[in-house]
This record gives sequence, C-alpha cells and structure tokens, in this order.
Amino acid sequence: MSDKRVTAAVLVIGDEILSGRTKDSNSGYIAHYLAQLGVETREIRVVPDVEDEIVAALNALRARYDYVFTTGGIGPTHDDITADGVAKAFGVGISEDPRAIALLLERIKPEDLNEARRRMARIPHGAELVANPISKAPGFWIGNVIVMAGVPSVMQVMMDDVAPKLVKGAKILSEILDAHGLPEGAYAAGLGALAKSLPEVSIGSYPRLQDGKFVNQIVLRATDAARLALATEEARKMLAEISTQHRL
Amino acid sequence: MSDKRVTAAVLVIGDEILSGRTKDSNSGYIAHYLAQLGVETREIRVVPDVEDEIVAALNALRARYDYVFTTGGIGPTHDDITADGVAKAFGVGISEDPRAIALLLERIKPEDLNEARRRMARIPHGAELVANPISKAPGFWIGNVIVMAGVPSVMQVMMDDVAPKLVKGAKILSEILDAHGLPEGAYAAGLGALAKSLPEVSIGSYPRLQDGKFVNQIVLRATDAARLALATEEARKMLAEISTQHRL
Repeated sequence: MSDKRVTAAVLVIGDEILSGRTKDSNSGYIAHYLAQLGVETREIRVVPDVEDEIVAALNALRARYDYVFTTGGIGPTHDDITADGVAKAFGVGISEDPRAIALLLERIKPEDLNEARRRMARIPHGAELVANPISKAPGFWIGNVIVMAGVPSVMQVMMDDVAPKLVKGAKILSEILDAHGLPEGAYAAGLGALAKSLPEVSIGSYPRLQDGKFVNQIVLRATDAARLALATEEARKMLAEISTQHRL
Repeated sequence: MSDKRVTAAVLVIGDEILSGRTKDSNSGYIAHYLAQLGVETREIRVVPDVEDEIVAALNALRARYDYVFTTGGIGPTHDDITADGVAKAFGVGISEDPRAIALLLERIKPEDLNEARRRMARIPHGAELVANPISKAPGFWIGNVIVMAGVPSVMQVMMDDVAPKLVKGAKILSEILDAHGLPEGAYAAGLGALAKSLPEVSIGSYPRLQDGKFVNQIVLRATDAARLALATEEARKMLAEISTQHRL
C-alpha cells in the first residue's frame, strides 16, 4: 500500500450489452474488486463489436488512466475482435502465440483445434498471458491494458491472476450512514458545508425509493482513516440534530 | 417507424457506480427501452461527479449520437452537479426555473422549500422540462441531451415522458437460437461465413457457463424482417448439421 493514487478504466466490449439484452455485471465487479486493492475506477465505457470503436476507446482510456481492463470479444467466433483491436491500438503485430496454443491443448484435443479455436491463441506481440483456469483460453496484458473474457466467471478468475501483479494505491476507506428517514433537502445544506470543510473526504448522498418513500444513505470516502472518522462523526451529529428538529 | 438509423448514448453520472458500491441498472434499462423504439444505443459511459468529466463526456457524446440520455446528479445535495455540467457543455446560463419551482411546490410546502431544494429547480436556459410524476423534481431536455434522475423508478417514469417525443428509427428485430450444447469452436467457421454472406444481419455468439459447461446462444439482429428470417433459417440448419456430426 502507498499514498499514491492509482486509477483505472473498464472497457466493456459487446453489442449484447448495448442492445440491453445482456446485463453487464462485469464492470461493477471489476470496480469493486479494484477498490479493495486501492485502485480507483474513474471511468467505465461500453462500446460495440466494431474495431474502430474499440481502438478509439482503448487509446483514449490507456492515455488517461494507470490501467484499462477490458472484458469481452476474445472467443473463437467472427464477432470476437478485441485482440485485433488491441494490437491495432498499440501498433503491434498479432499472431498465434505458442504459449496460448499450448494452453488450449490442455482442454482441446489436437484434432479439434480448428481454425476458429486457434483464433483464441492470437495474441498481440509483446503481451503477457493472463491465466484462465476455467476454460484455458487466456486473456493477455499489454502495456497498461488487461484483456479479459466476457463470461463473468472466467473474467473473475482472470482478475485473480492479474491482481497480485498490479501496482496498488492508497486504499479508499468508506463509511455509510443511514439518513434515518430524512429527505435529502433537509440535510443538504449541512452536508454541503461539511464536504467543503473537509475536501479530502468525498461525501455523497444517495437516495433510494422504498415503498414510495425516499430512504437515503450518505457515503463518506477517504484514504486517510482519521479524516474519514472525523467527517463521519460530524455527519452523524448533523443528521441526529436535524432528525431531532424534524420530530419537534 | 422509418428506415433511418437513430443512435443514442447513455451517460451515467455518479461516484457510487464507479466505486462498485451501487450497481448501475439504469443504462441497461434505457438501452432496452430505446431498442423497442428503434433507437440504437451505441455507447454507454460512466463518469464521476466531477464537472470537467461530465462536460467532456457530454460534448463528446452529443456530437456523435442523435441522443444522449444522462442519469444521476440532479438532486439537492452538493454532489448533484449534472445541471451545471450540462449548462457548461452547451455554453448557456443556468438559473431557477419558475416552471420547476411550481412543480416542486406540488410536493414541498413553501416553508420547506429551502436553498438546497431550490437547487433542483436550476435548469439550463432553453431546456424543456421532463415530467417526474413520482417526486416532482423534473429532469430536462436541451438540444439532443435528456437529463434524468439516478433513482431507477424516477428515471423510468421520465423515460415514459420522453419516449413519445423521440424521433424513432427502424426497429431492430432479433432472433435468438440456442446452440444446443455445441461449443463455439464447432460452429464458429459456419457462423462467420453466414455473417459474411449476409452483412445486413448482425450475428453474435454469446457463451455462458452453466454448471461448468458452456451454454451458448446465437443472436441475429436486423431491421429487415425477411433478411433476418433467412439468416435465422440458415443458422438453424447449420447448427442442426453440426450437431448431427457431433453426435456421430
């Protein structure tokens, strides 16, 4: 752990997410996983299975964040074009990687290793492989871009392979306070003043509707435990006071 | 309905999604909703509660797509900065809108309409309001950008208000085929050839893991019903043939 801030973006590749047919659970999983490691997800993008879109998004994101995690588009079918997009974004060649072929042969019989399946062994030059204990076809890591499968359970084991090798930043600690039935408008001024007085603590108010009533939570986040504790205590006091006034 | 292609992007604004704490269900809902109207979601982005990030994403997306739908950041607390970001992106002023104040007063007593709550009536100049039958605080629509709440049920009624006013495109029809237990590698070549021969039909193969086995689906999408039917029939035949070979 360090004081350094380490940032990431998640790039989800796939028409099926954009059509609304498939729910993307991968980006939330990755963001939550990274937060535990002190890596802060600053952006998520979903783009279609179109090479130019993938290349443009990769180049925008990898220039801006310490890491870019992609999911989707590394299978054997014609719509799996992520590896080519990554090679193009980095301006490197791409070809069948003997290490990846060896991994595929752990699961697939040599006589079944047809052209389509061999596509899963096409890896951009200079990339390291990311292990896939579930179905063997590897992900890969090139520069600051980590390329993973779209199937959630496969992506998750790939994250486990990648995690120990990531540079970790200062872990973001958080506290959650229940706004015990208060509407946001009742505590917004107090919370805003608190946020202003403690700029190193990020304070958010999150309304939810439950049975037609707003049930709000306040989330405080900071890397400094003492400042977080102070802000949490101040917020708690403020909410208690307003709550008492509301009941009067 | 028309033959025109109408495109959209969804911009989700909120630290709570990026931290992995809150699952974003809004973008999937909007994408699915728009697809029914013949509006094709081409990109989804999630950005933090940071004005510059919101402005940059808005300007990138509104230049590229017919519509941009945003969710989040229009409440009364200090972290609700979407309306200001939108005004800045469009280079217009922003101030309290008497129409929005009137709506807030349908739910909030005049003596409770404090400064924080009045923030919810700050609307960029030139915007039209989007109705919120649930909690009254309106969304708004300026240029090709539609600004909605982050609370899912509120966002959903806002979509219902917006939908009749959207320009609709050609509706994308879809068919789903079960790959009856075949691995992707077995039908990838056949499917790729089919996709090449019918370029106006978008064909995707989507693997899922179930009890350790891949259970795959093939999704075919097109605006032309006849071409879609042809492609579906060809894919069905191809899968049946391969399935027979596999069993032999």
